[in-house]
Amino acid sequence: KSPSSKKPLRSGSAAFTARAEASSSGGINPEIRKDEAKVVDNVLVAELAKPLTAYCRCWRSGTFPLCDGSHVKHNKETGDNVGPLLLKK
Amino acid sequence: KSPSSKKPLRSGSAAFTARAEASSSGGINPEIRKDEAKVVDNVLVAELAKPLTAYCRCWRSGTFPLCDGSHVKHNKETGDNVGPLLLKK
Ligand code: FES
Ligand code: FES
Repeated sequence: KSPSSKKPLRSGSAAFTARAEASSSGGINPEIRKDEAKVVDNVLVAELAKPLTAYCRCWRSGTFPLCDGSHVKHNKETGDNVGPLLLKK
Repeated sequence: KSPSSKKPLRSGSAAFTARAEASSSGGINPEIRKDEAKVVDNVLVAELAKPLTAYCRCWRSGTFPLCDGSHVKHNKETGDNVGPLLLKK
């Protein structure tokens, strides 16, 4: 991108700030549902549709609370070893 | 503790190093099962014993993969907003 791009500089800055703050403070969730004091999700296991459903524990999924595989990139970039919780019917 | 304590200085240093590394690198799991390349857990939902079971997503639980409430301390100390996944029968 050129410096004269019309895209305003502040675009994305909130997300960047959230990431920087989460990281510098030791937080683990940079972006997900930051309007909520505590992100808790409920699963009614009787309503699970598939034999196997993966739930995110890395706080990087684009389909949170489901896992979308983003833990792979997170682990590679940081040296971490996190992965999902697999619910099996 | 006095500096002349017989407890060796290196006691606990591995955990400290893991925490420091996880934090500085952006990792989110300081200590849990660091011998595993990726920490994945399976839940057979048919075998859930209780009407409600909380699974940890903060990587701070002493009973991981179950939630033991440690997310409260983590959130308070870091300003984060993470919480468990609740499985309901
Ligand atoms: S995307 Fe978060 S655990 Fe898979
Ligand atoms: S102890 Fe980790 S989410 Fe509750």
